[in-house]
Amino acid sequence: MICERVQKHLDSLTKPPGSLGRMEDMLLDYARLRELEPPPAPRAGAYLFCGDHGVVAEGVSAWPSEVTRQMAMNFVGGGAAISVMCRHYGIEPHVVDAGIAGEPVAGVLSRRVANGTANFARQPAMSRAEGLQALEVGTQLAAEAARRFDIVACGEMGIGNSTSAAALLCAYGEVDPAEAAGAGAGSDAAVVQQKVEVLRRALALHSSRDPMDIATAFGGFEILAIAGMILGGARHRLPVVLDGFISCAAALVVQALDPAALRCVFYSHQSAEKGHRLMLQRLGARPCLDLDMRLGEGSGAALLIGLFQTACRIYHEMATFDGAGVARSEPSQPD
Amino acid sequence: MICERVQKHLDSLTKPPGSLGRMEDMLLDYARLRELEPPPAPRAGAYLFCGDHGVVAEGVSAWPSEVTRQMAMNFVGGGAAISVMCRHYGIEPHVVDAGIAGEPVAGVLSRRVANGTANFARQPAMSRAEGLQALEVGTQLAAEAARRFDIVACGEMGIGNSTSAAALLCAYGEVDPAEAAGAGAGSDAAVVQQKVEVLRRALALHSSRDPMDIATAFGGFEILAIAGMILGGARHRLPVVLDGFISCAAALVVQALDPAALRCVFYSHQSAEKGHRLMLQRLGARPCLDLDMRLGEGSGAALLIGLFQTACRIYHEMATFDGAGVARSEPSQPD
Repeated sequence: MICERVQKHLDSLTKPPGSLGRMEDMLLDYARLRELEPPPAPRAGAYLFCGDHGVVAEGVSAWPSEVTRQMAMNFVGGGAAISVMCRHYGIEPHVVDAGIAGEPVAGVLSRRVANGTANFARQPAMSRAEGLQALEVGTQLAAEAARRFDIVACGEMGIGNSTSAAALLCAYGEVDPAEAAGAGAGSDAAVVQQKVEVLRRALALHSSRDPMDIATAFGGFEILAIAGMILGGARHRLPVVLDGFISCAAALVVQALDPAALRCVFYSHQSAEKGHRLMLQRLGARPCLDLDMRLGEGSGAALLIGLFQTACRIYHEMATFDGAGVARSEPSQPD
Repeated sequence: MICERVQKHLDSLTKPPGSLGRMEDMLLDYARLRELEPPPAPRAGAYLFCGDHGVVAEGVSAWPSEVTRQMAMNFVGGGAAISVMCRHYGIEPHVVDAGIAGEPVAGVLSRRVANGTANFARQPAMSRAEGLQALEVGTQLAAEAARRFDIVACGEMGIGNSTSAAALLCAYGEVDPAEAAGAGAGSDAAVVQQKVEVLRRALALHSSRDPMDIATAFGGFEILAIAGMILGGARHRLPVVLDGFISCAAALVVQALDPAALRCVFYSHQSAEKGHRLMLQRLGARPCLDLDMRLGEGSGAALLIGLFQTACRIYHEMATFDGAGVARSEPSQPD
């Protein structure tokens, strides 16, 4: 019923029916999820999940692990790209420590599962109990967010997490490591080759096909927290906008655990990270933005929320055919 | 020098170098064109060129010609999709009559070349003098715009103009009419077939390969005015953001007349109109947005200006590595 009302209103506006394309689809999906017509100007939040990765001991990143906490502090201080985007679009940022190595970071919401994951090249990244706890971090925040926001962006920060996401793509998607490993946050060819070799070893080590075993073998706490946010988003009718390679790896976890939950997900952008195209194919997703970004932090997701805001405003402010005195199209006369 | 300064600043910000992808390219191109570092928050205008098309007599549109003037009035009244987008992004709209059929429209800037084009299925759409005058409409407005704005969106409205744009694609790009003709503003299969047949007849009738002959044989006044805006934009260092199938047809005209002028052009979105992908290939263009829109009016261009605004804000407000105390990446140790 809500979708019919939204469609009817969209078709009354002074434009050819359907001509706003996926902007119209967004409005339909948003109104359906929130069960609201007219779809309100979205109150938006961003959840920036941070966590460290034991696998960095294998030399898979160009950046030292302490950058995870330094960037979490930068999020809190308002100096990161996602911080600027949140101000620009009026999105409320929430920085979440899902498992940063070392001392707690001031100003960050502490939901830390452990002091970083274990090195998955040698053992599972986490225990099953830790995996469930990380999922729970996301589902609980989704329940809270659904009361305060109409849409949320999911972002992440975690040195080493492109290797974790690549491993999840290999294991869930049956993809070869050479197709899944990319430059991440700026690795050169030698580091990418190292990632491929680490992935091959780790995939041989963790061979269970059980969806939760795969998640705990290779996952990051921040990735499973995003998976939990999707599961909770579906439960609480909260649209969840994903970002690039890392947050889409969380969607792979959800696809394996409860594929119907992906109904609350919006994919934002095609990232420049090598494995992202293949990952999106596995998810049946086609993002709206093609900007060669490879930053993470929820940056692409924030841009998509900007498009949602525009779409909602169009819905509310455009004139109707009758109101503006514009003629409608005529059915064609077949020859 | 300006590009070096922009690049240096971008690389000092707390993100992996280059990780904002094409958002960074936009900033570099924008600063280079405007010769300004730092690139200022863009003062933005939208030029909405309107014109009628004699070829509608051949039954190539589902909409009556009077919709061109009705929509021009709707632009002035603020009720069209582009009107809402202009308010949302703080873009100043300018509605230009380049050749609407019938009486002048109140509140519209009159730059009318003639009372609509002639039916190009039977004769050239316009004389060479009219073609030059239509180009001049755009170059003059670009000169004015370059003093008031840092970036402009080009949009259009003209019932029948997807047939005109398809003819330009066929003639400049040596594309078969069946590949160039699409549904436009919502034509059904019978009308699309009619467009193909009209295009075949018209291409046989107007066989000159001279770039200006092609433009005047098939063009619309609004399309040539956009071509003029590009030529003037290049001369006056004004970034010109194009929209979909119709405004990119103006870029084909410029590519034939003075390809270097395309240096001021930004392509915004991949439209759902059938021939647009092929047209973008001919232009060597890759748009940032993939929204299946097929509205025209400059709607996709306005969305790209929104991304420019975000990019500029990031440039000005992000923290630097030194300022935020974030460690930089380390060169990898080759094995």
